[in-house]
Amino acid sequence: MIVERIVTTGLSHFSYFIGDAGMAAVIDPRRDVEVYLNLAEREDLCIKWILETHRHEDFILGSRELADRTGAEVWHADGQLPYKFGKIIKATSQWMVGDLIIKALITPGHTPGGASYLLLERDTTPWMVFTGDALFAGDVGRVDLLGMGRAEEMAGLLYQSLQKNLLTLGDGVIVCPAHGPESVCGATISDRNQTTIGFERKANPFLQHDTREAFMAAAVRRLHRPPYFIRSERWNLEGPPLLSERSPISPLTCDAFAGFLDNSRVLDVRSELSFASAHIPGSVYISEENLQVHSGWFLDLDEQILLVTDHLPAAEVELRLLRVGLDNTGGFLKDGMNGWLQNGKETDSIPVISAAAFRRLLDKGPDPLILDVREPSESPIAAKVGIHIPLSEILIRHGELPRDTDVFILCGSGHRAMTAASLLKRTGMHNLKVILGGYRALDAINATAKLS
Amino acid sequence: MIVERIVTTGLSHFSYFIGDAGMAAVIDPRRDVEVYLNLAEREDLCIKWILETHRHEDFILGSRELADRTGAEVWHADGQLPYKFGKIIKATSQWMVGDLIIKALITPGHTPGGASYLLLERDTTPWMVFTGDALFAGDVGRVDLLGMGRAEEMAGLLYQSLQKNLLTLGDGVIVCPAHGPESVCGATISDRNQTTIGFERKANPFLQHDTREAFMAAAVRRLHRPPYFIRSERWNLEGPPLLSERSPISPLTCDAFAGFLDNSRVLDVRSELSFASAHIPGSVYISEENLQVHSGWFLDLDEQILLVTDHLPAAEVELRLLRVGLDNTGGFLKDGMNGWLQNGKETDSIPVISAAAFRRLLDKGPDPLILDVREPSESPIAAKVGIHIPLSEILIRHGELPRDTDVFILCGSGHRAMTAASLLKRTGMHNLKVILGGYRALDAINATAKLS
Amino acid sequence: MIVERIVTTGLSHFSYFIGDAGMAAVIDPRRDVEVYLNLAEREDLCIKWILETHRHEDFILGSRELADRTGAEVWHADGQLPYKFGKIIKATSQWMVGDLIIKALITPGHTPGGASYLLLERDTTPWMVFTGDALFAGDVGRVDLLGMGRAEEMAGLLYQSLQKNLLTLGDGVIVCPAHGPESVCGATISDRNQTTIGFERKANPFLQHDTREAFMAAAVRRLHRPPYFIRSERWNLEGPPLLSERSPISPLTCDAFAGFLDNSRVLDVRSELSFASAHIPGSVYISEENLQVHSGWFLDLDEQILLVTDHLPAAEVELRLLRVGLDNTGGFLKDGMNGWLQNGKETDSIPVISAAAFRRLLDKGPDPLILDVREPSESPIAAKVGIHIPLSEILIRHGELPRDTDVFILCGSGHRAMTAASLLKRTGMHNLKVILGGYRALDAINATAKLS
Amino acid sequence: MIVERIVTTGLSHFSYFIGDAGMAAVIDPRRDVEVYLNLAEREDLCIKWILETHRHEDFILGSRELADRTGAEVWHADGQLPYKFGKIIKATSQWMVGDLIIKALITPGHTPGGASYLLLERDTTPWMVFTGDALFAGDVGRVDLLGMGRAEEMAGLLYQSLQKNLLTLGDGVIVCPAHGPESVCGATISDRNQTTIGFERKANPFLQHDTREAFMAAAVRRLHRPPYFIRSERWNLEGPPLLSERSPISPLTCDAFAGFLDNSRVLDVRSELSFASAHIPGSVYISEENLQVHSGWFLDLDEQILLVTDHLPAAEVELRLLRVGLDNTGGFLKDGMNGWLQNGKETDSIPVISAAAFRRLLDKGPDPLILDVREPSESPIAAKVGIHIPLSEILIRHGELPRDTDVFILCGSGHRAMTAASLLKRTGMHNLKVILGGYRALDAINATAKLS
Repeated sequence: MIVERIVTTGLSHFSYFIGDAGMAAVIDPRRDVEVYLNLAEREDLCIKWILETHRHEDFILGSRELADRTGAEVWHADGQLPYKFGKIIKATSQWMVGDLIIKALITPGHTPGGASYLLLERDTTPWMVFTGDALFAGDVGRVDLLGMGRAEEMAGLLYQSLQKNLLTLGDGVIVCPAHGPESVCGATISDRNQTTIGFERKANPFLQHDTREAFMAAAVRRLHRPPYFIRSERWNLEGPPLLSERSPISPLTCDAFAGFLDNSRVLDVRSELSFASAHIPGSVYISEENLQVHSGWFLDLDEQILLVTDHLPAAEVELRLLRVGLDNTGGFLKDGMNGWLQNGKETDSIPVISAAAFRRLLDKGPDPLILDVREPSESPIAAKVGIHIPLSEILIRHGELPRDTDVFILCGSGHRAMTAASLLKRTGMHNLKVILGGYRALDAINATAKLS
Repeated sequence: MIVERIVTTGLSHFSYFIGDAGMAAVIDPRRDVEVYLNLAEREDLCIKWILETHRHEDFILGSRELADRTGAEVWHADGQLPYKFGKIIKATSQWMVGDLIIKALITPGHTPGGASYLLLERDTTPWMVFTGDALFAGDVGRVDLLGMGRAEEMAGLLYQSLQKNLLTLGDGVIVCPAHGPESVCGATISDRNQTTIGFERKANPFLQHDTREAFMAAAVRRLHRPPYFIRSERWNLEGPPLLSERSPISPLTCDAFAGFLDNSRVLDVRSELSFASAHIPGSVYISEENLQVHSGWFLDLDEQILLVTDHLPAAEVELRLLRVGLDNTGGFLKDGMNGWLQNGKETDSIPVISAAAFRRLLDKGPDPLILDVREPSESPIAAKVGIHIPLSEILIRHGELPRDTDVFILCGSGHRAMTAASLLKRTGMHNLKVILGGYRALDAINATAKLS
Repeated sequence: MIVERIVTTGLSHFSYFIGDAGMAAVIDPRRDVEVYLNLAEREDLCIKWILETHRHEDFILGSRELADRTGAEVWHADGQLPYKFGKIIKATSQWMVGDLIIKALITPGHTPGGASYLLLERDTTPWMVFTGDALFAGDVGRVDLLGMGRAEEMAGLLYQSLQKNLLTLGDGVIVCPAHGPESVCGATISDRNQTTIGFERKANPFLQHDTREAFMAAAVRRLHRPPYFIRSERWNLEGPPLLSERSPISPLTCDAFAGFLDNSRVLDVRSELSFASAHIPGSVYISEENLQVHSGWFLDLDEQILLVTDHLPAAEVELRLLRVGLDNTGGFLKDGMNGWLQNGKETDSIPVISAAAFRRLLDKGPDPLILDVREPSESPIAAKVGIHIPLSEILIRHGELPRDTDVFILCGSGHRAMTAASLLKRTGMHNLKVILGGYRALDAINATAKLS
Repeated sequence: MIVERIVTTGLSHFSYFIGDAGMAAVIDPRRDVEVYLNLAEREDLCIKWILETHRHEDFILGSRELADRTGAEVWHADGQLPYKFGKIIKATSQWMVGDLIIKALITPGHTPGGASYLLLERDTTPWMVFTGDALFAGDVGRVDLLGMGRAEEMAGLLYQSLQKNLLTLGDGVIVCPAHGPESVCGATISDRNQTTIGFERKANPFLQHDTREAFMAAAVRRLHRPPYFIRSERWNLEGPPLLSERSPISPLTCDAFAGFLDNSRVLDVRSELSFASAHIPGSVYISEENLQVHSGWFLDLDEQILLVTDHLPAAEVELRLLRVGLDNTGGFLKDGMNGWLQNGKETDSIPVISAAAFRRLLDKGPDPLILDVREPSESPIAAKVGIHIPLSEILIRHGELPRDTDVFILCGSGHRAMTAASLLKRTGMHNLKVILGGYRALDAINATAKLS
């Protein structure tokens, strides 16, 4: 018997591999499915079932890919949606995996027809429940995906699902959700990597409300909805293109790369210090840790993407883009930025300033203009000393920024500020400086008092 | 925050690494501690606490080793014992690991002063409990270690510990025991790799009894007590020799190896088929999967051990011996059995018979004499068609066997039968044949009907 | 600039990768061409030329495969043969690789139209010469491939090629042949891994003869001609099937494997000790070190081959078979011999005797019957104490052996004796015993005096 | 028999491992000797002899370290020097390695008592010669190490050694020198990785002179003599500290690192683009490819060195420093430059300009001031358009540079220009800009015409 959680960092996505006596099921597989195939081979199991808790919107499901590679059956929740492949679960559906039984539990709220899956041995008490985006460690699923207009309705459904279908399973049942901390599918997900119905019942803030109304008041929240969600939703419905039919990403010479520039977007994933010194004009900078989500935010789904990398292999970068449905990579700069420079090609740069030097500016006065790109949840600086535009809104709201005075961009550590600078530069702004080390650095040298 | 289980296969031992905010604790570390040091380095944590649930008897604890390498404090349970290092916990002891708190729970029964450790975040409800050998998935700790004379008393203590200290924690608390299935410290431990108080309360057979008496009747069992327990108990009290001060195991030429034979025992861990064809006379055969426990059973703690290996590296074999306190390895045969043979050295062999051929013997009659070395729990064959001596008793009871007729040795798959043959051969028996494939093979060809 | 030798052990085959300034050539590639593709990628070179010194007979050339993967041009020597792909070199052919020039030198003798390739930088003196099978370290090419009837003629051609085309290049030219020691294409090839025209001129025994006649007398030798040469010759002419279009070898359950037995040959590559104890009836045993050549000798090119392996992965065994044109593998026993035995399937065994025990037989008398399967060049035992049939002739001459008395099979170390036993067993012989450790073991214990 | 060349890139140093029949010799080992120990283990050989061709000056010999780890005997050439360990060779010295013989050949010229070693099989013609720094592929040893005053004398000795002792060995002898291209011990060493006496006789420019005088005129050259040569010479005489007794390099927190800054030098080996954006004030930048030699040039032997790295592990950087005798590393910045910045620590930066932008400056005029730091052999730009100070002289000649106008630093590709900038900045210059992509980039966009 094996139950294993597969973590996809960057997306903070959890899928699960369940095996017993020669058979296996996978819950909510990711698009690159080698990890499940390898587990099946290592444990000598045949994957029979692919079970989805809901359609998902923040990543491309690997259901079609895995079914194509194994012959397994795909079972969808959200049965009201027009799926183009696979079967639809019912409230009475169940699947055998050796001596284990998996039973469907319809738990709508995050989506109209989402499901959870209860795992137990034949003739025993409930053991584990795979809750998808209905219940997380310390959080519950967002209810705003159909629009805020329907959020109350969905929150009501979710309340029902939690109270009637999940909490009633018993305190001792282990809870296995689809996401961990930092996921775009939650706001307060905890980093406790194991939890139970009982623990959540006592400690999850969303389960402490006495009334349905109080729960709904807390659960109705508007969270980010990055543009790539649209494609994920469509592809998870139709089945995405198969990765097994893709060719490896092409290395491009400087000249070939330059030839593509007119109708492509350059994604640069080197360190922000290297990017600051020299990058191909018009490039978008995204740091490695934010690669998947920010690519989904800031790159156009249909535009060709060219990669500039150094230590992270281009194939790995491409894989992360594929996980969020950015399939349109056109190649990578084979000899890297050194090759580009040694060919005498044009580059651009972004001025930077260390936190220590910025503090001297603050001390000397007059106050420099700060653009804080952190999220509201990060307590950005007060409006009186600067402008606050979260990174996710920067492409819409850049018109609020002056173009005739230096704008010092601030985020937590410097990464997102550089992304913001690269995006703003594309709008024609040249009065940008990135504060290296970000708020964390200013805090370390007690320069933040002035910003609040 | 990180809570990670470290599995030592072979011993089916679980230790736990708990880290938060730069600090870490390890519960019941094994003797080779690199795994904890690596985790600490990867997560950038400093190991501060080493917590033992009890003295342990089935493996050598790494508390002293890990303390020596990190400066961490060692905390022992079983405080009535005369420990030669470390500190003794109290019922009120607790330790901080970043924002996490670990609290001692005194849970005697398996040992007179054993403890569990409760883990929770500051100001929250109980999250996980590390139960040592008090409570397993599907089993409870054995109570026969002080002798059957005190088993009732210990079972009473254990009942108390379970009912008062553990079950009262709440169903939602995750249970993290010190052992998994196949451990010599349990008899019915399940292979469910995650469990909770609630699940065990409902499903653990030892927790289904209505009365204290009924529990005790079930819990008082006599289990194996391999001879190496004595050393483990002593070294876990005094602190074992440090592995960091050992030299690597020496490769020995054929002549050097031969020179040591008189005052050494040869341990041969090649495949049983290779062993059957040719081995150094007097060698003990132990299969890789049983290496740790059977070495502790059948090798003398004080005799020098010489190794004959093929694909499993000698250093790995030595490591597994060290885990059970067999520190006295004198070297390994550098050029393997091929080298030994090409030097013209003496070898011995053990006749084998396939299950298919054995079935023909059965069919033809008269009935061959079978020695079944499986455990009572494996439903060995009826006495009327053969002799049943569990492998663990073979060295004591070999006098029961005839020496003038062929004895066909049977186990589940063939491995233990070969170990038995190698041990019996040392007593002067030559009338031995091993049934390849064991009971499993006989069953596959429907030859077992005759054996019941 | 890079010149790298790629060694294929087992075949003792040398191919060469030559690169400069973005371009590369490969001389005599083997069939699995990843090694060349990886070098090209590592050095950022584009493979443009594939140059063959001759058709080759002892392995499948990778020319077609490599051309298919890279677009490189294939150039054949032996232009009188009806090649189905590629171009034919002329005496004036030359190729540029960056600043390097490669010039054809027609050097027939081993084959009617074989060539060597001279490498030099533009406008400099000759640097290296790739001599194929014309000139080796310490040996020259065999001249018996067209039959002994034409061996004199070929030896004459070879003399001419050596004297006129190779020795005249100058002593300082580095010699890069197609084979090293133990190759079936030579008899006395040295293990000096670097040599020169000058060194060979002074030290190569075949170049010490004063006259053409003396050379020819030495060069006309009959060497082994394993049956697989026929396929290699044909496929090297027509182009072999592409490996890039093969599927991975299939794992087979015991039942599926058993189902194929009737029309397949089992190749068992486990240790000879394991094979002796238990193998699938009718299996051919070949040791890992002799895998490529002996498979070519003893397996039928058109019969389906099933593999039994343990530590050497089946895919690796298959690869070595593919190198000699044995493409017809049908799968491997997924759970190994342990699985086979635990399914209760039939097995066979081969009795073995250690050299030490055999010596006791010798001492006691009467003399046991020995079958020595070593080659004539290994000084097999005298006819008066036994029978000498080289392993390569065993399938033809097995009728010379008695079937009513024990035959003790002897080789150098025991491997080939077990191969002989497995082959003889298929002819119905059951009176076979393998002497473990072989002649080397008997020699080590001074038991060989009696055998001479 | 095995003869293997071990290449130490960065130093372009070749050592050799010679083994036969259980024994081995190493010629000119480097300081980190695991590579020889691993070869010995892989081939099952015992290292008996360590033979030095001369004292060496450009790296720390591993003779003492290897002797300490193996018990091998060390044999020095240059016997007039006061060696503190090992034995001194004579003209008649020879050593057996299995069936191989190694004979000393006294070949002074590069050093007063340097030697070569001739390798041959017993009773055969000469096979290979290990020439140390006497004869390279395409070059001969430098003769200026005792000062230019004695260069003529040494060149005379070298002429004698080459003509009498080496060229007379015969054209067919393979030449194995101690260095390859880019070594500081030669100026024109070719990248042909295999050569012979015959090839060098015909193609080596230093062996084409008709007379002793002509040879000497060419051979008397003044080459670089980096400051670290002094330590290498001393330690190679006395035996350097043993690496086996060193502790691993320490990770340092930002505060610990900052605390050491006053009496340490920071060596930064990140990419030059990252360095340009932000580095610890006062750091010396050295690119990975120049790490060993430039560290020996620009770091003080006795000053403590602190490392800032990113993708190259600190332990690997330290190893390269140890190879040139820079043993005094005090630790590395554990959390890298990101950690430093997020702590709000001070940083400095160096302005850069792309070649494309620099070309626009050139086109627009007036001419910017260029500092060309390439070597004379690289045809630096004419004095009329700029200043030429080779990097190796930058610390002595920085006074020649203006401090009141922008100085654009140019090298081949940008790496050395950044090193020059980091060194000049330490002299108080702030008017520095590095041309990214260097001369290669300017050439690619046809901007070099203006510079000649």
